[in-house]
Amino acid sequence: MHASHYVPHYRADGPVRAGIPEHGRIPRYYAVKTELLWLIDALGEGTALPSERELAERFSVSRVTLRQAVGELVLEGKLQRRQGSGTFVAPPKLVQPLSLVSCAEGLRRQGVDPARSVITVEHLPADDVLSRDLGVDRGDPVIHLEQVLLADGERIGLESTYLSAARFPTLLEVFDPTTSLCACLRDRLGVVFAEAEERVETVLATPREALLIGTNPALPMLLLHRVSHDNVGEPVERVRSLYRGDRFSFLARLRSE
Amino acid sequence: MHASHYVPHYRADGPVRAGIPEHGRIPRYYAVKTELLWLIDALGEGTALPSERELAERFSVSRVTLRQAVGELVLEGKLQRRQGSGTFVAPPKLVQPLSLVSCAEGLRRQGVDPARSVITVEHLPADDVLSRDLGVDRGDPVIHLEQVLLADGERIGLESTYLSAARFPTLLEVFDPTTSLCACLRDRLGVVFAEAEERVETVLATPREALLIGTNPALPMLLLHRVSHDNVGEPVERVRSLYRGDRFSFLARLRSE
Repeated sequence: MHASHYVPHYRADGPVRAGIPEHGRIPRYYAVKTELLWLIDALGEGTALPSERELAERFSVSRVTLRQAVGELVLEGKLQRRQGSGTFVAPPKLVQPLSLVSCAEGLRRQGVDPARSVITVEHLPADDVLSRDLGVDRGDPVIHLEQVLLADGERIGLESTYLSAARFPTLLEVFDPTTSLCACLRDRLGVVFAEAEERVETVLATPREALLIGTNPALPMLLLHRVSHDNVGEPVERVRSLYRGDRFSFLARLRSE
Repeated sequence: MHASHYVPHYRADGPVRAGIPEHGRIPRYYAVKTELLWLIDALGEGTALPSERELAERFSVSRVTLRQAVGELVLEGKLQRRQGSGTFVAPPKLVQPLSLVSCAEGLRRQGVDPARSVITVEHLPADDVLSRDLGVDRGDPVIHLEQVLLADGERIGLESTYLSAARFPTLLEVFDPTTSLCACLRDRLGVVFAEAEERVETVLATPREALLIGTNPALPMLLLHRVSHDNVGEPVERVRSLYRGDRFSFLARLRSE
């Protein structure tokens, strides 16, 4: 249980070492992916990758094999394709702190300019999930606000927020839907956010979501479900936020109680 | 901005409604996927799906189209393939609370029996990331423990833990590597876990990881990076936990400070 096993090119996070199966057979596309990871590190953010033909020659593999390696690196957000101009080394994933509200202050701290564009504002009858989470009866009217999330003008996510229409009857009059909803709830409607439960999972984008976010339907997304409560324990909102898995990570800070 | 737009079969979480692009053209495989989601709901957990031939006939689509829909539902953890016996309705994703330590108590509360099997125990020289996170010099010896995570005997993840060998010189003598490391650190080595930073992202499994976890390399995984500190602010461990994206979600509870 005490092997002393030094690995020359060890990297704590990279799939370079971790990617080699125990039995030692390395799939060819994966060997290329490993080479490309070193190349990406050497080139640095924003640099164009050499052409497909050049890389296939350099690694002595077919273009099909090369494409599989590049395709995975695009899905994982290490490379970015730009329409008509090739493939580039992507910037690191944005880190979104898990927080009580989605005020995008975390993004601003990373020097990113957040914005929202409205897709849907509607009333819906509460289904079982909404009636439970918002503390209303089944069929009661619920405000549904759907916004595309932008970072420096790039579409990076899609957020749906659900609130009780009976609890917030004036919301749609006072709310400017190009701004952050939580700021409006807090500053104009006097809501004190006190507690939230957030669940993170990975899902595939649906065709509609892919279209709205401007991405590939096969792209793994991070899906965040949040239910927040105010300082007297009343539910405030149910939020479903879908973020591009190649551009985002979530950060939680935990303390012992 | 105030459309009143009632949708009869509305479900807050399902891709059923959310999956239809604005322009109204629904990809055929996606329409089948939507039908399958209703069927999955109707059949319930653990039920076998009808045969591919039967479903392709029922939905009047080719088997290629049917396979694309079923394939996505498998990737998303709604369906499970069982070797030699077909495709079944999967149980809901397990919910892993984000916590200071990875003691698997969260899984036990869901009635799941957690276990670990050891893959690697080794000493490594600290690279830049490890020296920063563990507060040691570059090249200093680091203990690396790699375990496969099991839930009710099923392999569901892979965890690598890194600790300073100078700080924990007796660890490999007192630690039973089939048990939880954090319990050993806490109960035998007197570590008081006080604070942790956890970052969650989605990645694709590498061939080696897929082999160790017994899954498909194309499967989206949830990757959790944790750095924890003790009650005097000293770094304790750096952990890299990879969980099957089709079987896991993470839960965080947040409170205003």
